[in-house]
Amino acid sequence: MSTFAPPYFGSDYYPEDWPAEQLSEDIAKMKEAGFNVARIAEFAWSRMEPSDGVFEFGWLHRVVDELGKAGIATILGTPTATPPVWLLRKYPGVTKVLEQGNSLEHGGRRHCCFRNPIYLRYCLRIAEKMAQEFGNDPNVIGWQIDNEVYVHDRGCFCPVCAEQFRRHLEKKFNGDIDALNRAWNLTVFSQEYSSFDEINPPRNAWTNPHINQEWILFQQHAVIEFVHAQADVLHRYVGSVPVGTDTMPYNGLDYAELSSRLDIAEFNHYNTPNTLWEVILWFDFVRNYRNRPFWNTETQTTWNGSHIISQTLKPEGYCTANSWLPIALGGEANLYWLWRTHWGGHELMHGAVLAASGRPMHTFGEVQEISRGLRKAADFINGTRVVSDIAVHYPSRSLNLFLVQGIHKEFHYTRCFADSFYRPLLDECCRPDLLETSQDFSQHKLLVSPYVCYLEPELAKRILDWVANGGIWIVGPMTDIRDEHGAKFQDRPLGCLEELLNVRWCYSVPDAELTLKCAWKDGSPFQSGVWNELYEANGDGVLAQITQSPHSALLGKAVLLERKIGRGHVFLLGTTPSREMMRKVYERALDLAGIPYGNGDGENIVVVPRQGEKLSGQFLVEFAGQGGIVTLPKPGHDLLTGEDFDTTVPLAPYQVRVIQF
Amino acid sequence: MSTFAPPYFGSDYYPEDWPAEQLSEDIAKMKEAGFNVARIAEFAWSRMEPSDGVFEFGWLHRVVDELGKAGIATILGTPTATPPVWLLRKYPGVTKVLEQGNSLEHGGRRHCCFRNPIYLRYCLRIAEKMAQEFGNDPNVIGWQIDNEVYVHDRGCFCPVCAEQFRRHLEKKFNGDIDALNRAWNLTVFSQEYSSFDEINPPRNAWTNPHINQEWILFQQHAVIEFVHAQADVLHRYVGSVPVGTDTMPYNGLDYAELSSRLDIAEFNHYNTPNTLWEVILWFDFVRNYRNRPFWNTETQTTWNGSHIISQTLKPEGYCTANSWLPIALGGEANLYWLWRTHWGGHELMHGAVLAASGRPMHTFGEVQEISRGLRKAADFINGTRVVSDIAVHYPSRSLNLFLVQGIHKEFHYTRCFADSFYRPLLDECCRPDLLETSQDFSQHKLLVSPYVCYLEPELAKRILDWVANGGIWIVGPMTDIRDEHGAKFQDRPLGCLEELLNVRWCYSVPDAELTLKCAWKDGSPFQSGVWNELYEANGDGVLAQITQSPHSALLGKAVLLERKIGRGHVFLLGTTPSREMMRKVYERALDLAGIPYGNGDGENIVVVPRQGEKLSGQFLVEFAGQGGIVTLPKPGHDLLTGEDFDTTVPLAPYQVRVIQF
Amino acid sequence: MSTFAPPYFGSDYYPEDWPAEQLSEDIAKMKEAGFNVARIAEFAWSRMEPSDGVFEFGWLHRVVDELGKAGIATILGTPTATPPVWLLRKYPGVTKVLEQGNSLEHGGRRHCCFRNPIYLRYCLRIAEKMAQEFGNDPNVIGWQIDNEVYVHDRGCFCPVCAEQFRRHLEKKFNGDIDALNRAWNLTVFSQEYSSFDEINPPRNAWTNPHINQEWILFQQHAVIEFVHAQADVLHRYVGSVPVGTDTMPYNGLDYAELSSRLDIAEFNHYNTPNTLWEVILWFDFVRNYRNRPFWNTETQTTWNGSHIISQTLKPEGYCTANSWLPIALGGEANLYWLWRTHWGGHELMHGAVLAASGRPMHTFGEVQEISRGLRKAADFINGTRVVSDIAVHYPSRSLNLFLVQGIHKEFHYTRCFADSFYRPLLDECCRPDLLETSQDFSQHKLLVSPYVCYLEPELAKRILDWVANGGIWIVGPMTDIRDEHGAKFQDRPLGCLEELLNVRWCYSVPDAELTLKCAWKDGSPFQSGVWNELYEANGDGVLAQITQSPHSALLGKAVLLERKIGRGHVFLLGTTPSREMMRKVYERALDLAGIPYGNGDGENIVVVPRQGEKLSGQFLVEFAGQGGIVTLPKPGHDLLTGEDFDTTVPLAPYQVRVIQF
Repeated sequence: MSTFAPPYFGSDYYPEDWPAEQLSEDIAKMKEAGFNVARIAEFAWSRMEPSDGVFEFGWLHRVVDELGKAGIATILGTPTATPPVWLLRKYPGVTKVLEQGNSLEHGGRRHCCFRNPIYLRYCLRIAEKMAQEFGNDPNVIGWQIDNEVYVHDRGCFCPVCAEQFRRHLEKKFNGDIDALNRAWNLTVFSQEYSSFDEINPPRNAWTNPHINQEWILFQQHAVIEFVHAQADVLHRYVGSVPVGTDTMPYNGLDYAELSSRLDIAEFNHYNTPNTLWEVILWFDFVRNYRNRPFWNTETQTTWNGSHIISQTLKPEGYCTANSWLPIALGGEANLYWLWRTHWGGHELMHGAVLAASGRPMHTFGEVQEISRGLRKAADFINGTRVVSDIAVHYPSRSLNLFLVQGIHKEFHYTRCFADSFYRPLLDECCRPDLLETSQDFSQHKLLVSPYVCYLEPELAKRILDWVANGGIWIVGPMTDIRDEHGAKFQDRPLGCLEELLNVRWCYSVPDAELTLKCAWKDGSPFQSGVWNELYEANGDGVLAQITQSPHSALLGKAVLLERKIGRGHVFLLGTTPSREMMRKVYERALDLAGIPYGNGDGENIVVVPRQGEKLSGQFLVEFAGQGGIVTLPKPGHDLLTGEDFDTTVPLAPYQVRVIQF
Repeated sequence: MSTFAPPYFGSDYYPEDWPAEQLSEDIAKMKEAGFNVARIAEFAWSRMEPSDGVFEFGWLHRVVDELGKAGIATILGTPTATPPVWLLRKYPGVTKVLEQGNSLEHGGRRHCCFRNPIYLRYCLRIAEKMAQEFGNDPNVIGWQIDNEVYVHDRGCFCPVCAEQFRRHLEKKFNGDIDALNRAWNLTVFSQEYSSFDEINPPRNAWTNPHINQEWILFQQHAVIEFVHAQADVLHRYVGSVPVGTDTMPYNGLDYAELSSRLDIAEFNHYNTPNTLWEVILWFDFVRNYRNRPFWNTETQTTWNGSHIISQTLKPEGYCTANSWLPIALGGEANLYWLWRTHWGGHELMHGAVLAASGRPMHTFGEVQEISRGLRKAADFINGTRVVSDIAVHYPSRSLNLFLVQGIHKEFHYTRCFADSFYRPLLDECCRPDLLETSQDFSQHKLLVSPYVCYLEPELAKRILDWVANGGIWIVGPMTDIRDEHGAKFQDRPLGCLEELLNVRWCYSVPDAELTLKCAWKDGSPFQSGVWNELYEANGDGVLAQITQSPHSALLGKAVLLERKIGRGHVFLLGTTPSREMMRKVYERALDLAGIPYGNGDGENIVVVPRQGEKLSGQFLVEFAGQGGIVTLPKPGHDLLTGEDFDTTVPLAPYQVRVIQF
Repeated sequence: MSTFAPPYFGSDYYPEDWPAEQLSEDIAKMKEAGFNVARIAEFAWSRMEPSDGVFEFGWLHRVVDELGKAGIATILGTPTATPPVWLLRKYPGVTKVLEQGNSLEHGGRRHCCFRNPIYLRYCLRIAEKMAQEFGNDPNVIGWQIDNEVYVHDRGCFCPVCAEQFRRHLEKKFNGDIDALNRAWNLTVFSQEYSSFDEINPPRNAWTNPHINQEWILFQQHAVIEFVHAQADVLHRYVGSVPVGTDTMPYNGLDYAELSSRLDIAEFNHYNTPNTLWEVILWFDFVRNYRNRPFWNTETQTTWNGSHIISQTLKPEGYCTANSWLPIALGGEANLYWLWRTHWGGHELMHGAVLAASGRPMHTFGEVQEISRGLRKAADFINGTRVVSDIAVHYPSRSLNLFLVQGIHKEFHYTRCFADSFYRPLLDECCRPDLLETSQDFSQHKLLVSPYVCYLEPELAKRILDWVANGGIWIVGPMTDIRDEHGAKFQDRPLGCLEELLNVRWCYSVPDAELTLKCAWKDGSPFQSGVWNELYEANGDGVLAQITQSPHSALLGKAVLLERKIGRGHVFLLGTTPSREMMRKVYERALDLAGIPYGNGDGENIVVVPRQGEKLSGQFLVEFAGQGGIVTLPKPGHDLLTGEDFDTTVPLAPYQVRVIQF
């Protein structure tokens, strides 16, 4: 019977790195910091299984028990990122093979092949042993599988991966090698295969985008299967205690799929003052992995210093705003990394709550104050959820496509997504849900689909039905331009949009030098972007067109079209927009959708509407160190300061307010 | 009996990448574009020989026949850059081995060793089969061997290359290893060999410039032999149909030697507005490979996008000027790459005549207009040749020498050649022939030899005889400073120039910071360059000397000397000149040679005098998008616009005029 | 009975690279240059041992004899950096293996493993043979072992090194693998070993700083052992003739240890005008390797051009100042590299005394003038030694620690040492001795210990005793923060300084953006640096503190503390100082120590006090090309110009004065 309750506030803890007798001192200091959770064991395989099949959990039970007695819950990590050296020496073939041919070695972490059956067997065994030991422990409130799983570089090129890749392709193409040849247009450069056995992983060659895409998805799927296999083992023992895996702000994996067999989203980030707004983007994404408040499992108190310190000395309040953001945006936990800076081993320069010496780092006072605030706002945090009427597609598939076959070297998908599509919504004080294309948007009023190169036919149909029922869809640019293999269509420029929207694509042209000029329907000019898909409307609906061009063939072509379909509207966007242009597009769409916007200094304050069965209100977080104001929709009370506000609320730099209506 | 006639205008065509039934549609669109030639089959090995020894040419005959019926001639490419996967799987040793040790893999192109006897056997077999099939086909007007052959990286390090390198050296040094030791000064660092068998290809070491030069020439020679071997096979079957290989704007190979067993020069380039003038340089070089109009086999209509688009949106007219330049400068064909952008496979973002969807790209109207112009000017194009009185040495040997042992890190041979020696001639509206040192200059009035590090004794003698008979020679800097092995002379600073020109070399000094200052004989100052060879004249003839120096030893030394020899003149240049300085040197030399110059805005208009048995005139091409004027030597008629001009001809940005006198 | 006497002036000489009959010409030109020493044979292994066990020294005797007859002494180099190809072909395993796995090849130099027993055996044999031949030769005045020995890249990863590394660790940790696990905190990432046999050299992994430090020290020790083994062989034959090895300006090795079994320091450098002051730093370091005047064995006359020229055309006088600096700062020899530029082989573009053609380079007149000056000042040079009251720690251990685990990416140890600690002393016209931490400072009045991360307990005790007896110690920042393994302390921020100095460390914070502001005790403001260790004083003694901070926790903390201990003083510095700040700290300490300072334009003139039994005076060298003045402590006479000065001495740009009192 766990007596622990969110919001959770704490840090990692590596008791294995410190003298056993230091435990009580550390626990006392955690209490002093106001902590109620610790995340442990994620890299302690060699302590839990010092030699093959010999398990030692006594030390870990003692830590979990003592923490529990002090009111500090435990999140347990499986240590599979750090296999002991005895495993590698016994089975040298388990290590990852790099593209250049060399095998990784013991000494760091994540150096084994996700697909190696021997490594996998040992991983599942240690996970199962841990689950057997701690599955019923009331002090354990959650599980973390491995740590920051990704495909690094281009994945593993070991013989296991090579063979499984051939079999994967054979299965995907139903054993028909000519189907693969056709799908990938392998007559180009005489690449055609006559057998799946002839295929090698793509390296040491100028390889084509289709095999590269398939390879990277295949490698990413190995990660997902690896996590799922562990989740299945844990689920057999842990009851309703949630199982997750802590991920990072990089959308290379399909997190919707990754999360499908997990219970909770766990998330690590180390953003800095200049990019703090981008972590808001991530929370708007992570919140939707699972229908349950997520845990922010790692962030810094001061600075990242894994290899060496490169971060700035952050101003007072930064730690506060950074720590509250996950709570405001739908999480129920914030944990720091590190509790105490390592005294030896890797990552010596990473900031922490305490210095290695046990003395507090300079942000300790902020940490204590955050803890007090969380307790004041606990009922509101637990009793409300984030409210959003806007969905934005942010598919990992697009990132993968742009990585294997970019369109223009000045176009960077994640950068342009963040700057041109996400940031303007933030500016407007809007709260979007970011989604993989497989996720549900039926309850949203506005859907935005930029750079969705592969627009699955099923998805297009789903969207159009929703539009017909009153949805507002902003689509493009670079959407519906590739098939599932990353190829173009042979007989049409777009998969289905021309027909669905009754428009005609004319030209797509790069313009990194911004020589094209555009105008809105009312004549006011604006600047188009680095990539331009130019249309002719069949009939009316042109909202913006090219008015100046170095080449006359482009003049007068449309870059923004509006279409009314059933009870809904579609905006077809043909240019990579500026932040300013996109605000104008959004404002028109938000008006149509009846979504309020613009009620504050969105450039540096994030506004998060919250609604519960009994409670409602808003989180307000100033994230840029500048201060500003927000206009409330109704009078409210700041749970942190005790102040009451009628409409206008001022925020100091990095101030956090929890406004309850 | 071919009925096709130049000028040829068209593009590549990859029918193997598209549905067979699309052929007629593509041909109709080619006709619409005004095309009369298509270049096909260059990468279609797997379609022509789907498995070892099984040949299928039916599909290709159909394409060639249908094109021919429509009045479109065919240039056929041998597909040897793209061996099928069955060849690699059967003989894994045929692939190229990189310096780092890894072998290239199937999936791209040019991944086999040029010297591998098995690969070579298969290449010659497919070439021969094609020649047997199409050698007499009246629709085939030319052959292209392989595609863009080069030594990439530092060549192939496979065992075949290693062994042949040893035997090559043994032959070159007549089996005398001590001769090699002496020629390369191998006492430096105790490098001496006692046997040719001890020699490995130069890698994994700080290798000396002599073995590096020998290696790179050896690798380049493999390319040349590979092309020649195919040419020999084709020549047995193709009668008078010309055989070539399409090369790129990179002078790393000795193209004079490469072309010696070919019939025609084929050339690919993808220059952009900022560097369009450099392709003029290349045409002045390529024109002289063979005594026959060359073919520009590849250029873009819009942009290069092989891996990703990085080029600008080009202004209207650019495609026109770019397409006419090869015709103006001595070619008789211009072909685009691509006809239709690839729908799958590699190079998806490359611009074309048509988009993959079959719709025209935005330059289609320009393409049609170019076609109309070519028909109007056909008789003039076919009936005249480029006239030039100026020869400029541009030896691949120099580039190779500078690559293996540079002189100063701020000195880049091709850059400085183009900017300091070629561009000033362009500025002066002069038309030079660029030549390898082995080529004939006896009919030219002015010869320029900059950076000819290795001045072969035979060449020096040939030049001096020509000077004695009235030739004007500009020589230096960095000329005659190395022997055939890339070594310096042990007992003299220059091989022969001091004695021949009766001067004394004093010092060679770098000056990247441009601290030295010079003056002409009349006292007017100018700036010398990054490298300075300083002389004392024996007697008179100093045209320019050092007037300011951070070191007094350099003061008063000559940087430009003039010598009268027999009926001719020699200008010895000791500094890497600026564009401005070199114009002054050229003007003096052109006056002496009686060559007219300066009759127009050479900075952005190229003037190409043409002379035929019956016709004469000039091509004028504005290549910088600025417009300008040219003064004609006599009244003329613009074959494109129908206008008549007495003397002054205005050109709009990117305008092309074909002036017939 | 050698008749040669310092100061020595000359160059390398590679007679093996030139026709034998050229010897007399070269000797005549050396005499013309004013040379009395030549350094030969360093790369001539293949000439001395053309095949395994066959030795030929006749040619070398002839050279040494002829030089000697002409009054030119010889320094002989062992050629072990350039093993002949027959050795590699017979024993392929002797070559160095790179981290990436490839073995180095013949063709350059330093391509064998320092630890390989076969290579080592051959090295000692050739060294012994040379010693037997020339050990008693009166013309040989010194020996040079190998050439510019270092650990390149991260050393050698061959099987010999791997196995010796395991045994090295086993010995260091007394066979107790758990001691290693504990010392390196290997529970981090489950890195723990159960046997020394499980350890591999650190590569192909994200390895920890402790194994990286141990590896790099292990590799460096191989270099030292290699040199010592040769020294032991030579010492058996060469009597009192000094044996050394020529090193470079890079403190990656422990030169105190390297020099411990050598007789003389030999030093090579190629500094340029912008960095000439840094070579003064090096001479202040090199002077203390051995208690005997060092030899500057290599410097350029004009420019370095090993692979290609990248250096500037240096102004007149630069060669003069550069050549005198080693003499002024405690050396007794200056030799150029090269005598005559190579005509073939490697390093063709390197400047020399003569061009390959045998003609003088443009600095030849300066060289002759330097020779004349050295003869004038010979008695003063030989009869005086450099006087210094200041010691500064410059431990190679610190560089190694910062390389394996940096603190902040904007902090570069050698750069910050030079700019912030050395240069201000130069500015003050002070003459420091730079020392490894193992060296003696008991006779100095002021000791400076910046960035001494690992402050050995023995050293701390030695320093504190010396302070108690009146020494003045400036300590910090980044001092005493690591143990011998490069780990932090588990229970305290500093090893011993808090207790010894009665202070309390509060926080260490990065501040690359320089947002913190400080003030001296008197309120005058200054800027702190990129790294800040902030203290609270117990009691008085705060000299400077934080007055502005983006985070309030840091306000008021001390960055500079003063402590009186016994008859001495300690200054504890907590920030990486600016040049200006450090001058103020130095001035206070120099006043306390009673050391004079500030008597001239130290920014561009180096002042070197010299004292002998009979003679005393100062060397003055203008090193920045600007000119300036120095105030003498007493009247003096310039031995070079014959001028007499009472107090103020003017110096022209690059002027050298030898002032005898």
